[in-house]
Amino acid sequence: MALVVRNIPRAEPGVIDALAGFGVATVHEAQGRKGLFAPYLRPIYRPCAIAGSAVTCQVPPGDNWMIHVAVEQCQAGDILVVAPTSPCEDGYFGDLLASSLVARGVRGLVIDAGVRDIAVLTEMGFPVWSKAVFAQGTVKETLGDVNLPLVCAGAAINPGDVIVADDDGVCVVRRKEAATVAALSAKREAAEVEKRARFAAGELGLDVYGMRERLAEKGLRWVDEA
Amino acid sequence: MALVVRNIPRAEPGVIDALAGFGVATVHEAQGRKGLFAPYLRPIYRPCAIAGSAVTCQVPPGDNWMIHVAVEQCQAGDILVVAPTSPCEDGYFGDLLASSLVARGVRGLVIDAGVRDIAVLTEMGFPVWSKAVFAQGTVKETLGDVNLPLVCAGAAINPGDVIVADDDGVCVVRRKEAATVAALSAKREAAEVEKRARFAAGELGLDVYGMRERLAEKGLRWVDEA
Amino acid sequence: MALVVRNIPRAEPGVIDALAGFGVATVHEAQGRKGLFAPYLRPIYRPCAIAGSAVTCQVPPGDNWMIHVAVEQCQAGDILVVAPTSPCEDGYFGDLLASSLVARGVRGLVIDAGVRDIAVLTEMGFPVWSKAVFAQGTVKETLGDVNLPLVCAGAAINPGDVIVADDDGVCVVRRKEAATVAALSAKREAAEVEKRARFAAGELGLDVYGMRERLAEKGLRWVDEA
Amino acid sequence: MALVVRNIPRAEPGVIDALAGFGVATVHEAQGRKGLFAPYLRPIYRPCAIAGSAVTCQVPPGDNWMIHVAVEQCQAGDILVVAPTSPCEDGYFGDLLASSLVARGVRGLVIDAGVRDIAVLTEMGFPVWSKAVFAQGTVKETLGDVNLPLVCAGAAINPGDVIVADDDGVCVVRRKEAATVAALSAKREAAEVEKRARFAAGELGLDVYGMRERLAEKGLRWVDEA
Amino acid sequence: MALVVRNIPRAEPGVIDALAGFGVATVHEAQGRKGLFAPYLRPIYRPCAIAGSAVTCQVPPGDNWMIHVAVEQCQAGDILVVAPTSPCEDGYFGDLLASSLVARGVRGLVIDAGVRDIAVLTEMGFPVWSKAVFAQGTVKETLGDVNLPLVCAGAAINPGDVIVADDDGVCVVRRKEAATVAALSAKREAAEVEKRARFAAGELGLDVYGMRERLAEKGLRWVDEA
Amino acid sequence: MALVVRNIPRAEPGVIDALAGFGVATVHEAQGRKGLFAPYLRPIYRPCAIAGSAVTCQVPPGDNWMIHVAVEQCQAGDILVVAPTSPCEDGYFGDLLASSLVARGVRGLVIDAGVRDIAVLTEMGFPVWSKAVFAQGTVKETLGDVNLPLVCAGAAINPGDVIVADDDGVCVVRRKEAATVAALSAKREAAEVEKRARFAAGELGLDVYGMRERLAEKGLRWVDEA
Repeated sequence: MALVVRNIPRAEPGVIDALAGFGVATVHEAQGRKGLFAPYLRPIYRPCAIAGSAVTCQVPPGDNWMIHVAVEQCQAGDILVVAPTSPCEDGYFGDLLASSLVARGVRGLVIDAGVRDIAVLTEMGFPVWSKAVFAQGTVKETLGDVNLPLVCAGAAINPGDVIVADDDGVCVVRRKEAATVAALSAKREAAEVEKRARFAAGELGLDVYGMRERLAEKGLRWVDEA
Repeated sequence: MALVVRNIPRAEPGVIDALAGFGVATVHEAQGRKGLFAPYLRPIYRPCAIAGSAVTCQVPPGDNWMIHVAVEQCQAGDILVVAPTSPCEDGYFGDLLASSLVARGVRGLVIDAGVRDIAVLTEMGFPVWSKAVFAQGTVKETLGDVNLPLVCAGAAINPGDVIVADDDGVCVVRRKEAATVAALSAKREAAEVEKRARFAAGELGLDVYGMRERLAEKGLRWVDEA
Repeated sequence: MALVVRNIPRAEPGVIDALAGFGVATVHEAQGRKGLFAPYLRPIYRPCAIAGSAVTCQVPPGDNWMIHVAVEQCQAGDILVVAPTSPCEDGYFGDLLASSLVARGVRGLVIDAGVRDIAVLTEMGFPVWSKAVFAQGTVKETLGDVNLPLVCAGAAINPGDVIVADDDGVCVVRRKEAATVAALSAKREAAEVEKRARFAAGELGLDVYGMRERLAEKGLRWVDEA
Repeated sequence: MALVVRNIPRAEPGVIDALAGFGVATVHEAQGRKGLFAPYLRPIYRPCAIAGSAVTCQVPPGDNWMIHVAVEQCQAGDILVVAPTSPCEDGYFGDLLASSLVARGVRGLVIDAGVRDIAVLTEMGFPVWSKAVFAQGTVKETLGDVNLPLVCAGAAINPGDVIVADDDGVCVVRRKEAATVAALSAKREAAEVEKRARFAAGELGLDVYGMRERLAEKGLRWVDEA
Repeated sequence: MALVVRNIPRAEPGVIDALAGFGVATVHEAQGRKGLFAPYLRPIYRPCAIAGSAVTCQVPPGDNWMIHVAVEQCQAGDILVVAPTSPCEDGYFGDLLASSLVARGVRGLVIDAGVRDIAVLTEMGFPVWSKAVFAQGTVKETLGDVNLPLVCAGAAINPGDVIVADDDGVCVVRRKEAATVAALSAKREAAEVEKRARFAAGELGLDVYGMRERLAEKGLRWVDEA
Repeated sequence: MALVVRNIPRAEPGVIDALAGFGVATVHEAQGRKGLFAPYLRPIYRPCAIAGSAVTCQVPPGDNWMIHVAVEQCQAGDILVVAPTSPCEDGYFGDLLASSLVARGVRGLVIDAGVRDIAVLTEMGFPVWSKAVFAQGTVKETLGDVNLPLVCAGAAINPGDVIVADDDGVCVVRRKEAATVAALSAKREAAEVEKRARFAAGELGLDVYGMRERLAEKGLRWVDEA
């Protein structure tokens, strides 16, 4: 039995857009260093930076039938998150599916598998984070699930969670924590602005963060080259 | 004993150029989802899209002597296809060899090993699909074969087969099937143009391909988020 | 016990800059095909080509505390070389540390681990060669060493050695051999200019290098396609 | 903030033991081809076949402090499941921790990282499924969580879920589904006994499963070697 | 369209058995250092050493339907060689299929994918060389080909070629070259017996092979530790 | 120019044998968590535990000529350490070379490349730690160095350093530190005996190491499952 869950809840659009602005590194730190996808997911072009609501799609190896089913569940502001039930690098997704997602206002694709037609996707400005670029075609024979929880590239995702993706990779923020994380990210970013200025002016992290004493306590010693 | 085979047959230039225009994903689908090289072969720059006749060159690990031999067998419109006899990522090929191939009208290199001088190759506009970028130099001590069949990145290649390569990777088309595959690719592309328009207009794959009934038969169920 | 060594010796600035101009492939050949870092270290943007004096920093897995310590030991013209004590792809380095290094005139970072904020680093024009791009944050709990010899991506590095890095990867030149290697590189480059012209004019490597006789001696045979 | 959750619920001991007897392949099929850990987790010795209740432990890279915390939450019949917050192959676990777990009746360890002292662990008969064997030591500086849900080698695990592990790898069964899955596994196993006898007697799967008609419908053709 | 080719030619049984006795390293050297499968194919247990006639089976990712078709084409003395059309580590093969092959006198399986039930296969003494051990089940929905040429783990295989497999890996010998290769292997083995005795008696390869002069000519120098 | 250094210094035999007895994990901890080779080096059979003096041998990719040269520099109690100048998995070493080393009293081989004839090596009881098992033959055309410092699997080795190798992997101890490290290892082992007894008796690491207070200070909280 396979299921498609409709009408999943989503986070506030304003919160989602704010998270896009902070980026993956800041958001992941702000929520306590969690939620990152494995670093083998890479964007097909750079720079790119988006956030959106996860529509999840679990697919069999070498079979992209369920992506067509998932498209219907996508709406403006979403990001499609696809994971195979066993590791696979086939090219599940190309320019036709991208045209369909663009028509619905979908912001991008995160897929723990392969993608193809990347020259066209790049021209279209449709961002994809994938495990591989591979033209290998897929079949349409076996069912999977849409909008059930899944694990994608090592990250546990619930439908409606917020996905943040940029040049550094991909991160998930739980839907109910999204507003809090956005606020913490804003705070963190503000602090970084000030620190960046001090660093740019030549101050050292050792002093900005007051690290010298603790380093010495731990036993660090400075010596001159003999 | 090592061999160099001269005067290999090649496909029709017009067919080859047509295949370049269709690209790897379309060509591979048109010929029945076969002929792809492994996805770890990646282009050194993007975008790039070529097709040409395969001149094959089997090389020992860490030894690029035979590439110099292979260059002489190359003519305008060819693509040099290099595979080591055991896995190796050394930089078999750089800007000098590229200058030599460009002088002969060769369109690009596909190598299941490493390449170097990629900044210069990029400036020259000489495309390379390789397993690695690695400056490691090679020696010139041991023979190999030119224009015998070989396996490159998991694909079996005969000299004179058509190689199609673009941002999505690399594909081989048998020389005798090239015209048929070009015709099938043209057909496929035409069909995609029409579908792309329907997708862009918001139609769903579920309807364009008439998938709903078969999905239901297989047991797919739609439910609303509780 | 952990150590920070101050006042390491460095090579002549003129020699270092000359090595940057020759690039990794030429320099590594000129010094006898040695000194290359593993090819999995890749630049975060291209093109890029630098050379500088190595400030070395050994870090625990998932802990970037010592990078802050290392920054203080860096001066204009240096390249920071970071290696973890066990394999790790965490994002040890981002835009704040880059601002600090830029303020000191540091030319780039080579790290056998992950880096983050690469969109900003790219905009800043601060080059990084890394094993991964990964937003994963690090802690500041455990000591390491600065300016002791270390192994980074398979290459043994002494503080003050010259690091050469470009699109092809990264290479180390021993400090005391730097002037000699620069001279040999210049010689090699001059020879290549002449060869490149001959190749571009259509001469074959077989003739330019006089390879035909030795190939025949080794047993190579040319035959025509049957 | 880091948490240790005490008194997690567990499945029925009889159900757990039954699942151990069926093994990973059967259990994973019986529950609809789900729940497998990534295949890079391998046992340190063979044969081995266990099942137990998951006590989960999330650890920082290169830091095994929380494993000591987790041991206290383990009881007879449990399996300790350890996952780092970012990829790490350090040797988090050796013979001392194994002695401690054996004293509590723990049945084995599943760890998405490295293990050491495997000669002693093998002699002790304490089974471990790990990503690597690596002597690299760890520190005790940073907190993590015990008995919160986590992702281990691509599988989402809740504390108290049933872990089944044998020579084929590792599988998770949701605690509340354990009895049902055990029943389905028994059914599947019974069916396999009968089929194994038919296969051993020389009957073909084509006939046992009645596949010939459907193969022909799909277009399969038999031809004789020319 | 998918094909099953019946009645493939096979090599002489006596030749095949002789090749099994020589083993992979000797056979591959005797035929000129060719025919090896990639080293990631590993046996599920050791020691093991077989040879047999290749029955080839190309399968879609995650779909083992065609293996059932291939079984019918196998006879006593064969080795089944399975390759997926795109990389896949699913567990295509387990104890039921093994029972079927054993009933037909098949000697083993070589599969560029995953295998499961390895505890039972080990007990049965049915040897398998595979890319992975993975319990992941497969479906039976899509056709492939039996007894057409294919590429398995980088080696090009024709149906009826001789497969030699042991602890060192897997090698293919062309059917028509099998007798010659067996003779060359016998010669090589005889020479090795004599050399092994000399080495065991303390003679050096430098002398047994008369290498000293050529080493000196190439420029090797011996110096004493300062 | 290539060099062979004769008469390298070695550590005291008694110290070397003591290090073998402590094993890799203990020795590496005793010397401050350093000296480990990368975990991809694995023994060809288990259990095995040796220590010996390193004779180093740097080889070109796919060329084992220098191993024959290195054999002559080996004496009873040595371990041969081989590293290619660029990554290579070819089978540099087999039973003939093993016979030669056994005749000289060499204790084992550590090679950052491939090995073959492992069935025979296993029968002989000659232990090898390698990156791969691969029958791929090598040539004898290009020089390398014997008994110069090299990097093997990420570890910097000097000739005469002590190599410790067992089921957990491989570790290097500097020759001059060997006696001190042996003494520290003995101390560590003694402490572990006592701890192992306490763990086996059911005491917890939390108490044995007195961790509870520091965990609480860092913010760890215990809660009951809701």
